[in-house]
Amino acid sequence: AEAEAEEEDSDETCSTASLREIFVVSDSTGESASASVRAALRQFDYCFGSTCGTARSTVYRFVRSAGEAERIVELAAGRGALVVHTVMEPRVHAALAAACRARGVAACDLWGALLDSLEEKFGAKRSGVSGRRQAVSSEYMTIIRAIEYTRKVDDGVLPHLWDEADIMLVGPSRAGKTPLAFYLAQRGYKVANYPLVPDEDPPPELFGMDQRKCVALMIQPERLQAIRIERMAQFNRSSTRYASLDEIRKEVRWIKTFYLRRGTGWPIIDTTSSGVVETAARIMEILDRRKGDSLAAAYVSPLAD
Amino acid sequence: AEAEAEEEDSDETCSTASLREIFVVSDSTGESASASVRAALRQFDYCFGSTCGTARSTVYRFVRSAGEAERIVELAAGRGALVVHTVMEPRVHAALAAACRARGVAACDLWGALLDSLEEKFGAKRSGVSGRRQAVSSEYMTIIRAIEYTRKVDDGVLPHLWDEADIMLVGPSRAGKTPLAFYLAQRGYKVANYPLVPDEDPPPELFGMDQRKCVALMIQPERLQAIRIERMAQFNRSSTRYASLDEIRKEVRWIKTFYLRRGTGWPIIDTTSSGVVETAARIMEILDRRKGDSLAAAYVSPLAD
Repeated sequence: AEAEAEEEDSDETCSTASLREIFVVSDSTGESASASVRAALRQFDYCFGSTCGTARSTVYRFVRSAGEAERIVELAAGRGALVVHTVMEPRVHAALAAACRARGVAACDLWGALLDSLEEKFGAKRSGVSGRRQAVSSEYMTIIRAIEYTRKVDDGVLPHLWDEADIMLVGPSRAGKTPLAFYLAQRGYKVANYPLVPDEDPPPELFGMDQRKCVALMIQPERLQAIRIERMAQFNRSSTRYASLDEIRKEVRWIKTFYLRRGTGWPIIDTTSSGVVETAARIMEILDRRKGDSLAAAYVSPLAD
Repeated sequence: AEAEAEEEDSDETCSTASLREIFVVSDSTGESASASVRAALRQFDYCFGSTCGTARSTVYRFVRSAGEAERIVELAAGRGALVVHTVMEPRVHAALAAACRARGVAACDLWGALLDSLEEKFGAKRSGVSGRRQAVSSEYMTIIRAIEYTRKVDDGVLPHLWDEADIMLVGPSRAGKTPLAFYLAQRGYKVANYPLVPDEDPPPELFGMDQRKCVALMIQPERLQAIRIERMAQFNRSSTRYASLDEIRKEVRWIKTFYLRRGTGWPIIDTTSSGVVETAARIMEILDRRKGDSLAAAYVSPLAD
């Protein structure tokens, strides 16, 4: 009966025949528009499994002529696609909107309401110019420096440089420290990380540095095991010890005790059910709140309850 | 007279007194919402200099209670801020909207129109659930693998691993290859890079690998000089040769000749006036078009004209 119900479900909403197409059209990089579409699509995960499997979005970048916009709308009409657009250049925008109307293509002006609000707030019209010239801004140099630092000290090396870090990530091996470190570096933070191994004493520099920079990562043993099994499959390796659930449970217990004993001031973030973007956002939130940029609120460690 | 005009200008629209505040409120990470706001703000650069200096956006992440939403609106009312929101949870969304109306705070539901369009397209309601559980998806493992690879081969090392790359970036020293490589790695591409130095022969592996993976970077000598001067200032170093415009012009000329001679099939991308995000988008566009995912169009090298 269960299998039947599942089949019925997928027949109704999740069959390949019902694949929905979304065209993201931008006269710039389309990066923030496609991030918005990806985030909004998660609202429809529930009927399509966890991967938005039956929705496909295609990004059309640097669309800067009316003709190109019209060809994309033609394609969208043929495929029954929804057109989500963030075109700034007035003539291209007008051509795109007119073509959608003429062909009956569903369209959404993603930033229309936002730009209207901003025009009112600024008492000024949008420029209508796409993209912008990149200055050698201090922000750009900060990011370059952050990435180079993060690369240099990745995986617990060069402890004499840890004082320079903005953030030190401590956590079990394979809990996702490296991608997290580089994501934060792309936001301008110099990030060091140290993989905790049971019964191995971290270098004294970890406790000599500003402890407010340290963030402790935690992960449920079951998820850590799933990641490690994936990893080993990738490299065609097998190590029963590295991926044994009993061993991982012992390891995670050791690490929790270590945090309570040695890292009493460190916020502890559970990464079990969050991706890199969410974990990074949690860390930036802690830093923002400490700076007083956000609603004042003390961070409560999840180990406290 | 020129100075006077400038002063008048800044008195009218650009004085610090007219700083505009924007509150981005999300019940998830707020990452894509704040990227959209940053991109939309660029439309108002023209009256505020190149840095959006007089607009400040603050991100309130993980706002998941009606009470917290109301406190943020209260703060926005006090500071005259525009509230841009992407709150999914229906009760928090309702509380936020009601509070904005009650206090006369300008508000913009960033994804309202998009979610309406998607509901129509899918024939299904949004779930109203914020965030989502992270599976050990193949996408996640691809990104981890890509970052680790990119870190390992950064700066022209380990040529015997270049065959594994999805993209090989070739270009002058300090043209921005490293941050670009890591940005692309975060999108799942394994990226190698090789810094070209005049009169130095690259390893044969560069020409032995699939040449369709190679992308040549170009940069105007003036901008390269500006970056190098910045860099040297950071490290308190000085090298007249490294940052001499004459020497840099010679170097860039040598590199152009090198591309025409040895990398005839490589697309050449000028990074002079684009940031990491834009350059990455151009590279992804080339790859997409080759795959046939986008409008079919041959990439035309800027050196061709």
